[in-house]
Amino acid sequence: MEKTNVAIVGLGTVGTGVARLLLDHGDRTARHAGRTLWLKKAVVRDLSKPRDVDLPSGIVTDSIDDVINDPDIQVVAQLIGGLEPARTIMLRLLESGKDIVTANKALLAEHGPELFTRARELGRSIAFEAAVAGGIPIIANLSQCLSANQICKLEGILNGTSNFIVTQMDEKGASYEDVVRRAQQLGYAEADPTMDVDGTDAAQKLSILAHLAFGATVNWADIPRVGIDGLDPDDLRFSRQLGYRIKLLALANLADDGLELSVGPTLVRIGTPLAEVRDAYNAIRVIGDAVGPVFYHGLGAGQMPTASAVAADLIDTAVGRTKLTFQTLEYFSTDQPPRVKQREADTLVGRCYFRLNVANHPGTLAAITAVLAKHKISIASVIQHEPENGNADDSGPPSGTVPLVIMTHAAAEGAARTATEEIQSLSAVTGPVVRLRVKD
Amino acid sequence: MEKTNVAIVGLGTVGTGVARLLLDHGDRTARHAGRTLWLKKAVVRDLSKPRDVDLPSGIVTDSIDDVINDPDIQVVAQLIGGLEPARTIMLRLLESGKDIVTANKALLAEHGPELFTRARELGRSIAFEAAVAGGIPIIANLSQCLSANQICKLEGILNGTSNFIVTQMDEKGASYEDVVRRAQQLGYAEADPTMDVDGTDAAQKLSILAHLAFGATVNWADIPRVGIDGLDPDDLRFSRQLGYRIKLLALANLADDGLELSVGPTLVRIGTPLAEVRDAYNAIRVIGDAVGPVFYHGLGAGQMPTASAVAADLIDTAVGRTKLTFQTLEYFSTDQPPRVKQREADTLVGRCYFRLNVANHPGTLAAITAVLAKHKISIASVIQHEPENGNADDSGPPSGTVPLVIMTHAAAEGAARTATEEIQSLSAVTGPVVRLRVKD
Repeated sequence: MEKTNVAIVGLGTVGTGVARLLLDHGDRTARHAGRTLWLKKAVVRDLSKPRDVDLPSGIVTDSIDDVINDPDIQVVAQLIGGLEPARTIMLRLLESGKDIVTANKALLAEHGPELFTRARELGRSIAFEAAVAGGIPIIANLSQCLSANQICKLEGILNGTSNFIVTQMDEKGASYEDVVRRAQQLGYAEADPTMDVDGTDAAQKLSILAHLAFGATVNWADIPRVGIDGLDPDDLRFSRQLGYRIKLLALANLADDGLELSVGPTLVRIGTPLAEVRDAYNAIRVIGDAVGPVFYHGLGAGQMPTASAVAADLIDTAVGRTKLTFQTLEYFSTDQPPRVKQREADTLVGRCYFRLNVANHPGTLAAITAVLAKHKISIASVIQHEPENGNADDSGPPSGTVPLVIMTHAAAEGAARTATEEIQSLSAVTGPVVRLRVKD
Repeated sequence: MEKTNVAIVGLGTVGTGVARLLLDHGDRTARHAGRTLWLKKAVVRDLSKPRDVDLPSGIVTDSIDDVINDPDIQVVAQLIGGLEPARTIMLRLLESGKDIVTANKALLAEHGPELFTRARELGRSIAFEAAVAGGIPIIANLSQCLSANQICKLEGILNGTSNFIVTQMDEKGASYEDVVRRAQQLGYAEADPTMDVDGTDAAQKLSILAHLAFGATVNWADIPRVGIDGLDPDDLRFSRQLGYRIKLLALANLADDGLELSVGPTLVRIGTPLAEVRDAYNAIRVIGDAVGPVFYHGLGAGQMPTASAVAADLIDTAVGRTKLTFQTLEYFSTDQPPRVKQREADTLVGRCYFRLNVANHPGTLAAITAVLAKHKISIASVIQHEPENGNADDSGPPSGTVPLVIMTHAAAEGAARTATEEIQSLSAVTGPVVRLRVKD
């Protein structure tokens, strides 16, 4: 049987999983690739570190040059995180004639155009199924399976850590801080979870999907994004009363005047598929003009789901499919103008959820609704309960105030932001005004 | 730009949709294929029939020879239903050097080994994404995206007509006959819907998926199957009381001693993704040993969802990916023994739902439960209400009898069947004993 020599650069959690699939399940990779995928080298930083996989002798090395200088190695799973040295190593591997498989979404979101252009110049390919939503093969589905469609809309829960935290807060009524601590103990959150919980990770993934689905070339940092790091359990509770759950939703919506992109905590109606995505799962809903809505649900991260995506890419690359797709689609090509431009954030239209603490005296609601009316924002529903006696519970609103929740009909982002500022400045309003988006 | 000449054979609903995608959206197919997909011929039976698409002159013909004898036509979307002349035409097209794209699942389920072997001998390919679950790209996902996994289980709602009927019966409390009539008016059911509602269509699709996912070569007719054509609204109602919905579920489950395959109305717990699949949608849940559970949901049929799948296959074939996949995977090869055998139906284990009308006098429940105990079938729950006064409603059980519903714990199919026969023969039991499966 023919043989394709493979190297893994980076034997962390995912790299170890990929090594296991290649070593322990060579029969199934061979069956799907029509040839043996032979793990020839695995590059690590620290040779002395114990590994969770039995590697035959001679495979592990701490020198990337053992891969670069070995012309028999054709495909490399480049599984180092971060931007550098990952970028430099990828360029060196491409220049030495290797095809690349990677899971590094930050690297692609930041340096995609440079890396993809260089790969094309060199006649090489970069496969990146594992970079977005590990267990959901969304890259192949957008690049190939749905290729006869104009994608109209894409909505995704793309960050498993955030979804785990929000689910636990919602179901257990726990505080953000307590759940983050628990997520770290369970391995669902990094020691420093900033990039996950502040929306950066989801925005980076969305920028990659927006390129595949809409031909947009968007810097992830230009995507308006809010994380779940400031989320208050009160908002989860009030949303539930209104029939919604809060999810960190990444949205891409094609309008006449451009592509709407955003990442933020969003109220999603209970009973719809995205609202029911729990814990570390990811989900993506795509609407194509021919196929209609297609919904995908799977594990967003974790060792073996991500390794499954990397190994599928290794197989596709060994078979030769990746090269055909990569040459045809010209991902992140700088030769062609982008097919669609990002819309101005202020013109984005959507329903809003407001929560604020207000003085419990006459005229307060009138003042607030007057501001909304001035900005032509119409109200869909209001929750205002009688004040609890004495406000003994110190998690409640300040004494003499009551929480007020307002759901609006569709309003432009700019108008909603200005209205929020004006409401915030009213003397009857205490503490910050919370504003969240509501999914159609 | 390079050009691939395409022909469509059969301009029915799907063929018309494919023609529209090629003619009206040539830019997007060109972008994803890296070349123009040029519709050169469309073969129809009746030239005089009006068409729902504007075709440039010279394209439509009623002679298949205009395609077979044109060496410039490289790919053919073969969209004729049924077995003959579809089979003969496909063989002739392959022999004249065309690559094939088809949506004909019955043809593949019946003649797959012959057609695929012949295509391989001739160096040609057959793509068939549209043959199973139109809008869900399950063929590509099983063949490529999940290729590093051993699939452990596959559960699917694969027949949109049945799901539409069951959903309407459940939500509207309507009878089977009334809903079928309505489905025919809406175009969700054929004039003769037998193949859809008796489980044949789902079994044919399951046989194809079982081949891709497990390497099984199973004659669809050997898959135990029950349709929804005998479904009683009472069973939908009692199931709901127990927390379940009834779905026509196609199941493939890999056990130590073989592959369990079945199609039948099955109780699925409310709130789980498969239970919430409504109307003409399809859904498939796949569990892989690396990726974990992946859930797909989309339109199962209809003009444009199916055309989307056909056009994606045309693009894949034009790019050259299909040939690589087809050569590598050796679908339905008769050279190699199947990797797994189908399990004996009698050894399949699962929970059961029983509903029967029983005489409302002492000893009845004791007699029934004694039969179950004899066959070591243990009871999970029972519903028996007091008889309604007088049984005035003639849809209710015969006077003097009451409906009895029993849910059991896991039992072998053979034991459950024998127990059903014995219960049926008890003098206290009136009318047929209904037995349905319950999903784990």
